[in-house]
Amino acid sequence: MDALRCLPGVGQKTAQRMAFHLLERERKSADVLADTLKTALEKIGRCKRCRTFTEHDVCEICSNKSRDLTQLCIVENPADVLAIQQSTSYRGYYFVLMGRLSPLDGIGPEALGLDVLANRLDEGEIKEIILATNLTVEGEVTAHYISEMAHGRNIKTSRIAQGVPVGGELEYIDSYTLSHAFESRVNYD
Amino acid sequence: MDALRCLPGVGQKTAQRMAFHLLERERKSADVLADTLKTALEKIGRCKRCRTFTEHDVCEICSNKSRDLTQLCIVENPADVLAIQQSTSYRGYYFVLMGRLSPLDGIGPEALGLDVLANRLDEGEIKEIILATNLTVEGEVTAHYISEMAHGRNIKTSRIAQGVPVGGELEYIDSYTLSHAFESRVNYD
Repeated sequence: MDALRCLPGVGQKTAQRMAFHLLERERKSADVLADTLKTALEKIGRCKRCRTFTEHDVCEICSNKSRDLTQLCIVENPADVLAIQQSTSYRGYYFVLMGRLSPLDGIGPEALGLDVLANRLDEGEIKEIILATNLTVEGEVTAHYISEMAHGRNIKTSRIAQGVPVGGELEYIDSYTLSHAFESRVNYD
Repeated sequence: MDALRCLPGVGQKTAQRMAFHLLERERKSADVLADTLKTALEKIGRCKRCRTFTEHDVCEICSNKSRDLTQLCIVENPADVLAIQQSTSYRGYYFVLMGRLSPLDGIGPEALGLDVLANRLDEGEIKEIILATNLTVEGEVTAHYISEMAHGRNIKTSRIAQGVPVGGELEYIDSYTLSHAFESRVNYD
Protein backbone atom coordinates (compact mmCIF):
# COMPACT_ATOMS: atom_id res chain seq x y z
CA MET A 1 0.00 0.00 0.00
CA ASP A 2 2.78 2.40 0.91
CA ALA A 3 4.57 1.67 -2.38
CA LEU A 4 1.43 2.41 -4.44
CA ARG A 5 1.17 5.86 -2.88
CA CYS A 6 4.01 7.04 -5.11
CA LEU A 7 1.41 7.14 -7.94
CA PRO A 8 -0.02 10.64 -8.54
CA GLY A 9 -3.40 11.24 -6.92
CA VAL A 10 -3.31 8.04 -4.91
CA GLY A 11 -3.90 8.42 -1.20
CA GLN A 12 -4.21 5.89 1.59
CA LYS A 13 -7.72 4.68 0.77
CA THR A 14 -7.09 4.31 -2.96
CA ALA A 15 -3.80 2.56 -2.33
CA GLN A 16 -5.55 0.05 -0.10
CA ARG A 17 -8.26 -0.61 -2.69
CA MET A 18 -5.63 -1.01 -5.42
CA ALA A 19 -3.55 -3.39 -3.34
CA PHE A 20 -6.46 -5.69 -2.49
CA HIS A 21 -7.74 -5.56 -6.06
CA LEU A 22 -4.36 -6.63 -7.46
CA LEU A 23 -3.88 -9.39 -4.88
CA GLU A 24 -7.39 -10.80 -5.15
CA ARG A 25 -8.13 -10.57 -8.85
CA GLU A 26 -5.20 -9.25 -10.93
CA ARG A 27 -2.14 -11.20 -9.83
CA LYS A 28 -1.03 -11.78 -13.41
CA SER A 29 -1.45 -8.12 -14.45
CA ALA A 30 0.40 -7.04 -11.32
CA ASP A 31 3.30 -9.24 -12.31
CA VAL A 32 3.35 -7.71 -15.82
CA LEU A 33 3.20 -4.25 -14.26
CA ALA A 34 6.22 -5.01 -12.08
CA ASP A 35 8.22 -6.31 -15.05
CA THR A 36 7.24 -3.37 -17.24
CA LEU A 37 8.27 -0.89 -14.56
CA LYS A 38 11.66 -2.64 -14.23
CA THR A 39 12.24 -2.63 -18.01
CA ALA A 40 11.14 0.98 -18.42
CA LEU A 41 13.37 2.18 -15.61
CA GLU A 42 16.31 0.30 -17.05
CA LYS A 43 15.89 1.24 -20.73
CA ILE A 44 14.35 4.69 -20.85
CA GLY A 45 16.80 7.54 -20.62
CA ARG A 46 17.10 11.07 -21.93
CA CYS A 47 17.61 12.19 -25.53
CA LYS A 48 21.04 13.80 -25.91
CA ARG A 49 19.65 16.49 -28.23
CA CYS A 50 16.32 17.49 -26.72
CA ARG A 51 16.31 15.87 -23.26
CA THR A 52 12.94 14.10 -23.74
CA PHE A 53 12.41 10.46 -22.72
CA THR A 54 13.69 7.87 -25.20
CA GLU A 55 15.00 4.31 -25.35
CA HIS A 56 17.79 5.45 -27.66
CA ASP A 57 20.65 7.92 -27.49
CA VAL A 58 18.74 10.37 -29.65
CA CYS A 59 14.92 10.38 -29.77
CA GLU A 60 12.78 9.69 -32.84
CA ILE A 61 12.00 13.35 -33.56
CA CYS A 62 15.61 14.52 -33.16
CA SER A 63 16.87 11.74 -35.44
CA ASN A 64 14.32 12.58 -38.16
CA LYS A 65 16.40 14.51 -40.72
CA SER A 66 13.40 15.71 -42.73
CA ARG A 67 12.21 18.20 -40.12
CA ASP A 68 12.86 21.94 -40.21
CA LEU A 69 16.31 22.68 -38.76
CA THR A 70 15.63 26.40 -38.40
CA GLN A 71 12.84 26.12 -35.79
CA LEU A 72 13.19 25.03 -32.19
CA CYS A 73 10.19 24.75 -29.88
CA ILE A 74 10.85 24.96 -26.14
CA VAL A 75 8.45 23.04 -23.89
CA GLU A 76 8.37 22.11 -20.22
CA ASN A 77 7.47 18.40 -20.43
CA PRO A 78 7.52 15.42 -22.81
CA ALA A 79 3.69 15.45 -22.64
CA ASP A 80 3.77 18.92 -24.27
CA VAL A 81 5.70 17.52 -27.24
CA LEU A 82 2.95 14.94 -27.74
CA ALA A 83 0.23 17.62 -27.46
CA ILE A 84 1.93 19.85 -30.04
CA GLN A 85 2.66 16.95 -32.39
CA GLN A 86 -0.98 15.86 -32.25
CA SER A 87 -2.54 19.33 -32.51
CA THR A 88 -0.39 21.40 -34.84
CA SER A 89 1.42 21.13 -38.13
CA TYR A 90 4.75 22.16 -36.56
CA ARG A 91 7.66 20.48 -38.37
CA GLY A 92 10.68 21.80 -36.46
CA TYR A 93 12.56 20.31 -33.52
CA TYR A 94 11.95 20.48 -29.78
CA PHE A 95 13.88 21.14 -26.62
CA VAL A 96 12.35 19.73 -23.43
CA LEU A 97 13.26 21.55 -20.22
CA MET A 98 11.85 18.83 -17.94
CA GLY A 99 10.57 21.54 -15.64
CA ARG A 100 10.55 25.33 -15.33
CA LEU A 101 12.70 27.90 -13.58
CA SER A 102 11.69 27.93 -9.94
CA PRO A 103 14.42 29.31 -7.69
CA LEU A 104 12.36 28.66 -4.55
CA ASP A 105 12.38 24.94 -5.34
CA GLY A 106 16.06 25.09 -6.23
CA ILE A 107 15.41 24.67 -9.97
CA GLY A 108 17.90 26.89 -11.79
CA PRO A 109 19.11 27.11 -15.40
CA GLU A 110 21.44 24.09 -15.08
CA ALA A 111 18.65 21.76 -13.91
CA LEU A 112 16.74 22.64 -17.09
CA GLY A 113 19.71 21.92 -19.31
CA LEU A 114 19.97 25.52 -20.45
CA ASP A 115 23.71 24.98 -20.91
CA VAL A 116 22.87 22.23 -23.43
CA LEU A 117 20.41 24.63 -25.07
CA ALA A 118 23.08 27.34 -25.23
CA ASN A 119 25.43 24.99 -27.10
CA ARG A 120 22.62 24.09 -29.47
CA LEU A 121 21.89 27.77 -30.19
CA ASP A 122 25.60 28.35 -30.79
CA GLU A 123 25.51 25.78 -33.62
CA GLY A 124 23.96 28.63 -35.61
CA GLU A 125 21.27 26.74 -37.54
CA ILE A 126 18.25 27.90 -35.50
CA LYS A 127 16.44 30.99 -36.81
CA GLU A 128 13.33 30.96 -34.62
CA ILE A 129 12.73 29.83 -31.07
CA ILE A 130 9.07 29.15 -30.26
CA LEU A 131 8.50 29.58 -26.54
CA ALA A 132 5.81 27.04 -25.66
CA THR A 133 6.29 26.89 -21.90
CA ASN A 134 3.04 26.95 -19.91
CA LEU A 135 1.24 30.26 -19.47
CA THR A 136 1.78 30.19 -15.71
CA VAL A 137 3.98 32.64 -13.81
CA GLU A 138 6.92 30.23 -13.77
CA GLY A 139 6.41 29.34 -17.43
CA GLU A 140 6.52 33.03 -18.32
CA VAL A 141 9.68 33.61 -16.31
CA THR A 142 11.30 30.66 -18.05
CA ALA A 143 10.21 31.94 -21.47
CA HIS A 144 11.66 35.34 -20.65
CA TYR A 145 14.97 33.85 -19.54
CA ILE A 146 15.32 31.83 -22.74
CA SER A 147 14.34 34.81 -24.91
CA GLU A 148 17.26 36.71 -23.36
CA MET A 149 19.58 33.85 -24.33
CA ALA A 150 18.25 33.99 -27.90
CA HIS A 151 18.45 37.77 -28.00
CA GLY A 152 22.18 37.68 -27.28
CA ARG A 153 22.59 35.39 -30.29
CA ASN A 154 20.32 37.36 -32.66
CA ILE A 155 17.75 34.57 -32.86
CA LYS A 156 14.09 35.52 -33.30
CA THR A 157 11.75 34.40 -30.49
CA SER A 158 7.99 33.96 -30.56
CA ARG A 159 5.45 33.01 -27.91
CA ILE A 160 2.32 30.89 -28.44
CA ALA A 161 -0.77 33.10 -28.48
CA GLN A 162 -2.54 33.88 -25.24
CA GLY A 163 -6.29 34.46 -25.22
CA VAL A 164 -9.76 32.99 -24.94
CA PRO A 165 -9.72 29.25 -25.77
CA VAL A 166 -11.74 27.90 -28.69
CA GLY A 167 -15.33 27.38 -27.55
CA GLY A 168 -14.80 29.83 -24.70
CA GLU A 169 -17.61 32.05 -23.47
CA LEU A 170 -16.60 35.49 -22.25
CA GLU A 171 -18.86 35.33 -19.24
CA TYR A 172 -16.93 32.40 -17.77
CA ILE A 173 -13.37 33.39 -18.67
CA ASP A 174 -11.01 34.54 -15.91
CA SER A 175 -10.40 38.27 -15.92
CA TYR A 176 -6.64 38.12 -16.68
CA THR A 177 -7.29 36.14 -19.83
CA LEU A 178 -10.15 38.39 -20.90
CA SER A 179 -8.11 41.50 -20.24
CA HIS A 180 -5.19 40.12 -22.22
CA ALA A 181 -7.42 38.95 -25.08
CA PHE A 182 -8.96 42.39 -25.24
CA GLU A 183 -5.67 44.29 -25.22
CA SER A 184 -4.07 42.04 -27.83
CA ARG A 185 -7.07 41.88 -30.14
CA VAL A 186 -6.16 41.19 -33.73
CA ASN A 187 -7.28 42.75 -36.99
CA TYR A 188 -10.30 40.99 -38.44
CA ASP A 189 -10.41 42.25 -42.01
CA MET B 1 -42.88 23.43 -7.91
CA ASP B 2 -43.70 23.66 -11.59
CA ALA B 3 -43.23 27.42 -11.53
CA LEU B 4 -39.76 27.12 -9.94
CA ARG B 5 -38.61 24.89 -12.78
CA CYS B 6 -38.32 27.95 -15.03
CA LEU B 7 -35.07 28.70 -13.13
CA PRO B 8 -31.93 27.52 -14.94
CA GLY B 9 -30.58 24.18 -13.74
CA VAL B 10 -33.60 23.47 -11.56
CA GLY B 11 -35.21 20.09 -12.14
CA GLN B 12 -38.09 18.35 -10.39
CA LYS B 13 -36.20 17.35 -7.24
CA THR B 14 -34.56 20.74 -6.70
CA ALA B 15 -37.84 22.52 -7.35
CA GLN B 16 -39.51 20.40 -4.70
CA ARG B 17 -36.77 21.11 -2.16
CA MET B 18 -36.91 24.83 -2.93
CA ALA B 19 -40.69 24.95 -2.60
CA PHE B 20 -40.75 23.23 0.79
CA HIS B 21 -37.81 25.30 2.01
CA LEU B 22 -39.57 28.55 1.11
CA LEU B 23 -42.88 27.48 2.62
CA GLU B 24 -41.43 26.09 5.81
CA ARG B 25 -38.68 28.54 6.65
CA GLU B 26 -38.47 31.50 4.26
CA ARG B 27 -41.98 32.83 3.83
CA LYS B 28 -40.86 36.42 4.22
CA SER B 29 -37.98 36.09 1.75
CA ALA B 30 -40.32 34.37 -0.70
CA ASP B 31 -42.66 37.33 -0.50
CA VAL B 32 -39.79 39.75 -1.14
CA LEU B 33 -38.68 37.57 -4.07
CA ALA B 34 -42.17 37.72 -5.59
CA ASP B 35 -42.34 41.50 -5.24
CA THR B 36 -38.83 41.96 -6.66
CA LEU B 37 -39.65 39.80 -9.66
CA LYS B 38 -42.80 41.84 -10.31
CA THR B 39 -40.94 45.15 -10.04
CA ALA B 40 -38.04 43.96 -12.20
CA LEU B 41 -40.35 42.68 -14.92
CA GLU B 42 -42.26 45.93 -14.91
CA LYS B 43 -39.33 48.37 -14.81
CA ILE B 44 -36.43 46.74 -16.63
CA GLY B 45 -36.44 47.17 -20.37
CA ARG B 46 -33.89 47.50 -23.14
CA CYS B 47 -31.46 50.35 -23.76
CA LYS B 48 -32.36 52.13 -26.99
CA ARG B 49 -28.71 52.53 -27.95
CA CYS B 50 -27.06 49.23 -27.04
CA ARG B 51 -30.00 46.88 -26.26
CA THR B 52 -28.70 45.87 -22.81
CA PHE B 53 -31.01 45.69 -19.78
CA THR B 54 -31.72 49.01 -18.08
CA GLU B 55 -34.39 50.76 -16.01
CA HIS B 56 -34.05 53.83 -18.19
CA ASP B 57 -34.48 54.66 -21.87
CA VAL B 58 -30.72 54.70 -22.35
CA CYS B 59 -28.39 52.69 -20.09
CA GLU B 60 -25.71 54.10 -17.80
CA ILE B 61 -22.80 53.34 -20.14
CA CYS B 62 -24.51 54.72 -23.25
CA SER B 63 -25.46 57.93 -21.44
CA ASN B 64 -21.89 58.47 -20.18
CA LYS B 65 -20.56 61.15 -22.53
CA SER B 66 -16.93 60.80 -21.40
CA ARG B 67 -16.40 57.44 -23.07
CA ASP B 68 -14.66 56.92 -26.41
CA LEU B 69 -17.14 57.48 -29.25
CA THR B 70 -14.88 55.88 -31.86
CA GLN B 71 -14.91 52.35 -30.40
CA LEU B 72 -17.83 49.95 -30.32
CA CYS B 73 -17.55 46.53 -28.70
CA ILE B 74 -20.03 43.86 -29.84
CA VAL B 75 -20.99 41.25 -27.25
CA GLU B 76 -23.61 38.52 -27.04
CA ASN B 77 -24.99 39.12 -23.53
CA PRO B 78 -25.30 41.78 -20.83
CA ALA B 79 -23.10 39.54 -18.62
CA ASP B 80 -20.28 39.99 -21.17
CA VAL B 81 -20.46 43.78 -20.73
CA LEU B 82 -19.96 43.31 -16.98
CA ALA B 83 -17.05 40.91 -17.56
CA ILE B 84 -15.29 43.33 -19.92
CA GLN B 85 -15.96 46.32 -17.68
CA GLN B 86 -14.48 44.49 -14.70
CA SER B 87 -11.50 42.97 -16.50
CA THR B 88 -10.26 45.46 -19.04
CA SER B 89 -9.54 49.17 -19.38
CA TYR B 90 -11.87 49.50 -22.39
CA ARG B 91 -13.47 52.95 -22.49
CA GLY B 92 -15.62 52.78 -25.61
CA TYR B 93 -19.29 51.87 -26.00
CA TYR B 94 -21.03 48.49 -26.34
CA PHE B 95 -23.66 46.89 -28.51
CA VAL B 96 -25.40 43.86 -26.99
CA LEU B 97 -26.80 41.36 -29.47
CA MET B 98 -28.83 39.46 -26.84
CA GLY B 99 -27.90 36.25 -28.61
CA ARG B 100 -25.99 35.03 -31.65
CA LEU B 101 -26.86 34.17 -35.22
CA SER B 102 -28.39 30.72 -35.22
CA PRO B 103 -30.55 30.10 -38.29
CA LEU B 104 -31.53 26.62 -37.06
CA ASP B 105 -33.16 28.19 -34.00
CA GLY B 106 -34.70 30.90 -36.15
CA ILE B 107 -32.36 33.61 -34.84
CA GLY B 108 -31.56 35.88 -37.76
CA PRO B 109 -30.04 39.37 -38.09
CA GLU B 110 -33.27 41.17 -37.11
CA ALA B 111 -33.60 39.28 -33.81
CA LEU B 112 -30.11 40.52 -32.87
CA GLY B 113 -30.97 44.11 -33.72
CA LEU B 114 -28.45 44.26 -36.53
CA ASP B 115 -30.69 46.81 -38.24
CA VAL B 116 -30.25 49.05 -35.16
CA LEU B 117 -26.50 48.39 -35.36
CA ALA B 118 -26.47 49.30 -39.07
CA ASN B 119 -28.07 52.67 -38.28
CA ARG B 120 -25.53 53.23 -35.55
CA LEU B 121 -22.63 52.49 -37.91
CA ASP B 122 -24.15 54.87 -40.48
CA GLU B 123 -23.86 57.70 -37.93
CA GLY B 124 -20.19 57.70 -38.96
CA GLU B 125 -18.53 58.22 -35.58
CA ILE B 126 -17.28 54.66 -35.06
CA LYS B 127 -13.74 53.92 -36.23
CA GLU B 128 -13.21 50.47 -34.72
CA ILE B 129 -15.54 47.60 -34.02
CA ILE B 130 -14.22 45.11 -31.47
CA LEU B 131 -15.85 41.73 -32.07
CA ALA B 132 -16.17 40.19 -28.60
CA THR B 133 -18.75 37.50 -29.35
CA ASN B 134 -17.97 34.12 -27.81
CA LEU B 135 -15.34 31.92 -29.45
CA THR B 136 -17.90 29.28 -30.29
CA VAL B 137 -18.96 28.35 -33.84
CA GLU B 138 -22.05 30.55 -33.66
CA GLY B 139 -20.10 33.41 -32.06
CA GLU B 140 -17.58 33.25 -34.93
CA VAL B 141 -20.33 33.25 -37.57
CA THR B 142 -21.91 36.27 -35.89
CA ALA B 143 -18.54 38.05 -35.73
CA HIS B 144 -17.98 37.36 -39.41
CA TYR B 145 -21.42 38.68 -40.37
CA ILE B 146 -20.87 41.92 -38.46
CA SER B 147 -17.36 42.34 -39.89
CA GLU B 148 -18.94 42.26 -43.36
CA MET B 149 -21.33 45.03 -42.31
CA ALA B 150 -18.37 47.09 -41.07
CA HIS B 151 -16.34 46.34 -44.17
CA GLY B 152 -19.02 47.85 -46.41
CA ARG B 153 -18.75 51.05 -44.37
CA ASN B 154 -14.95 51.16 -44.21
CA ILE B 155 -14.85 50.61 -40.46
CA LYS B 156 -11.89 48.68 -39.00
CA THR B 157 -12.78 45.46 -37.17
CA SER B 158 -10.76 43.54 -34.61
CA ARG B 159 -11.35 40.27 -32.78
CA ILE B 160 -10.36 39.49 -29.17
CA ALA B 161 -7.27 37.27 -29.09
CA GLN B 162 -7.70 33.52 -29.18
CA GLY B 163 -5.18 31.28 -27.43
CA VAL B 164 -4.13 29.50 -24.28
CA PRO B 165 -5.72 31.13 -21.20
CA VAL B 166 -3.56 32.66 -18.48
CA GLY B 167 -2.41 29.90 -16.15
CA GLY B 168 -3.04 27.31 -18.84
CA GLU B 169 -0.86 24.24 -19.15
CA LEU B 170 -0.28 22.94 -22.67
CA GLU B 171 -0.81 19.35 -21.69
CA TYR B 172 -4.43 20.00 -20.73
CA ILE B 173 -5.45 22.43 -23.48
CA ASP B 174 -7.83 21.25 -26.22
CA SER B 175 -6.13 20.66 -29.54
CA TYR B 176 -7.99 23.39 -31.49
CA THR B 177 -6.83 26.03 -29.04
CA LEU B 178 -3.27 24.72 -28.97
CA SER B 179 -3.15 24.55 -32.75
CA HIS B 180 -4.47 28.09 -33.05
CA ALA B 181 -2.13 29.41 -30.35
CA PHE B 182 0.78 27.83 -32.17
CA GLU B 183 -0.13 29.17 -35.61
CA SER B 184 -0.78 32.66 -34.34
CA ARG B 185 2.26 32.88 -32.11
CA VAL B 186 3.46 36.42 -31.53
CA ASN B 187 6.88 37.99 -31.59
CA TYR B 188 8.55 37.93 -28.20
CA ASP B 189 11.40 40.39 -28.55
